[in-house]
Amino acid sequence: MTAPLFKRIAFLGIGLIGSSVARIARERGDIAAEIVVNARTQQTLDRVMALGFADRVELDPAEAVKDADCVMLCAPVGAFAALAERIAPFLAPGAVLTDVGSTKQSVIRDIGPLVPAGVHFVPAHPVAGTEYSGPDAGFTTLFEGRWTLLTPPPGTDEDAIEKVAELWRRCGSMVERMEPGHHDRVLAIVSHLPHLIAFTICGTADDLADESRQEVVNFAASGFRDFTRIAASDPVMWRDIFLNNREAVLEMLQRFMEDAQAMARAIRWGDAAYIEDKVERGRKIRRSLIATKQA
Amino acid sequence: MTAPLFKRIAFLGIGLIGSSVARIARERGDIAAEIVVNARTQQTLDRVMALGFADRVELDPAEAVKDADCVMLCAPVGAFAALAERIAPFLAPGAVLTDVGSTKQSVIRDIGPLVPAGVHFVPAHPVAGTEYSGPDAGFTTLFEGRWTLLTPPPGTDEDAIEKVAELWRRCGSMVERMEPGHHDRVLAIVSHLPHLIAFTICGTADDLADESRQEVVNFAASGFRDFTRIAASDPVMWRDIFLNNREAVLEMLQRFMEDAQAMARAIRWGDAAYIEDKVERGRKIRRSLIATKQA
Repeated sequence: MTAPLFKRIAFLGIGLIGSSVARIARERGDIAAEIVVNARTQQTLDRVMALGFADRVELDPAEAVKDADCVMLCAPVGAFAALAERIAPFLAPGAVLTDVGSTKQSVIRDIGPLVPAGVHFVPAHPVAGTEYSGPDAGFTTLFEGRWTLLTPPPGTDEDAIEKVAELWRRCGSMVERMEPGHHDRVLAIVSHLPHLIAFTICGTADDLADESRQEVVNFAASGFRDFTRIAASDPVMWRDIFLNNREAVLEMLQRFMEDAQAMARAIRWGDAAYIEDKVERGRKIRRSLIATKQA
Repeated sequence: MTAPLFKRIAFLGIGLIGSSVARIARERGDIAAEIVVNARTQQTLDRVMALGFADRVELDPAEAVKDADCVMLCAPVGAFAALAERIAPFLAPGAVLTDVGSTKQSVIRDIGPLVPAGVHFVPAHPVAGTEYSGPDAGFTTLFEGRWTLLTPPPGTDEDAIEKVAELWRRCGSMVERMEPGHHDRVLAIVSHLPHLIAFTICGTADDLADESRQEVVNFAASGFRDFTRIAASDPVMWRDIFLNNREAVLEMLQRFMEDAQAMARAIRWGDAAYIEDKVERGRKIRRSLIATKQA
């Protein structure tokens, strides 16, 4: 077996992503020799011990990171600033500090200034997920064929970046570097806006007083179902993503609303060619997706 | 075996829905003794004969409906008026004329006045589908556990309604009657609006000049993918649905846009509680859906 990348990895937060990485680390053995898990409640930590992918659990994040040569933040991004402040004095010299947050400019803004000299901060985002959350939700194939985007600030230690990249490759992921602002815009359109829309349309449907929720539920197979799948994701995680990628999300939503208004106008005035053309574009993107095997 | 419901069924149009019903009729034998298929092109008809679920194919819809005691319109709803005009003089006395269109007020408006005395018009809508279209796309389990909604105008012959209901039950579907206007509003929110949104967001993503389509495609797993699946549906069918359920679609889109604007405002002003509440509602609807087994 290849030597483990790290002696000790500490997960702060252990939801879908964290528990998937921990399961892979446990199964492969070549990611970290020891796995420490921190979560906000003893109940979660008890569950983690029962699930068997951690060597040790710690209720205090400061205790969890001591002597760890890799610390991975897996909490909702809104919790990162407080977590970083708490752990900063306890981070081991030379340790790699990384995260899995879906917004990268905010993470660099919140954590960057708190990172002690000699600790290497490598922001990362594995672009993978399901609508399930919590330590039970993770599984070892989650990252296979998916991308992990690294957004290290200029001047970050190249060895540290490579170690994080290798960790994600060992998780089955493809790895790419990206500028944080560009990351936030791309993710706003492919992920944040679709989620915002899915949450919204579920609310719109729920508000219809004259059509009962049961009817919406009965006939959901016809399109609505896919939106509810997306909308089943973790509320706190998504609240934090929207608030921490505000500018890009608002810009993409604005563009989308203009396009939706143009469709409304075409429907009102019976512009069949316009509608057909827009529908055709959806098909084209779907075909590219299937060709790239992301479908 | 139970006696067939009909001596001869004629399908006008043979896409996903029509070819699924035809396959079931062929397999069960108790829906119709003879299956006749009409489509717009000889190429489609040749394919239908090769697929083996038709006894006869006819390029002229008038020829297809002659002596049929059940005629099922399975073309896009925008083609119904012309089809009905063409076949009306050739419909057999006592025949049942039904359809599978996704909009019901427009179907009654377009076909109703053309139905000859003695022919029984029973509008129907099987609420089932996939993103695939054409005679190859059909399969025999498409309607299992799904609803078919019947929207017969007042005064429609009860025996004819019951025969259509029984046809759909034999296809595996649950059957319910609904007022056409109510049908159009319910479907606008559960199906038409989700499709309109999916088509639109694919266009919005495609328009981003600075983020390439390849990046959108690479990271689509993160939410966008479900929208492209919906958006892969047949363009002509959807164009016709939007144009023929105009008022309900525009109203639901308007409600949705107001809700999306409210979300945008909450994001801009950092209203965390509002966002979390909206996200929670999506989860609740998803849970109802899973409880009703439509997920």
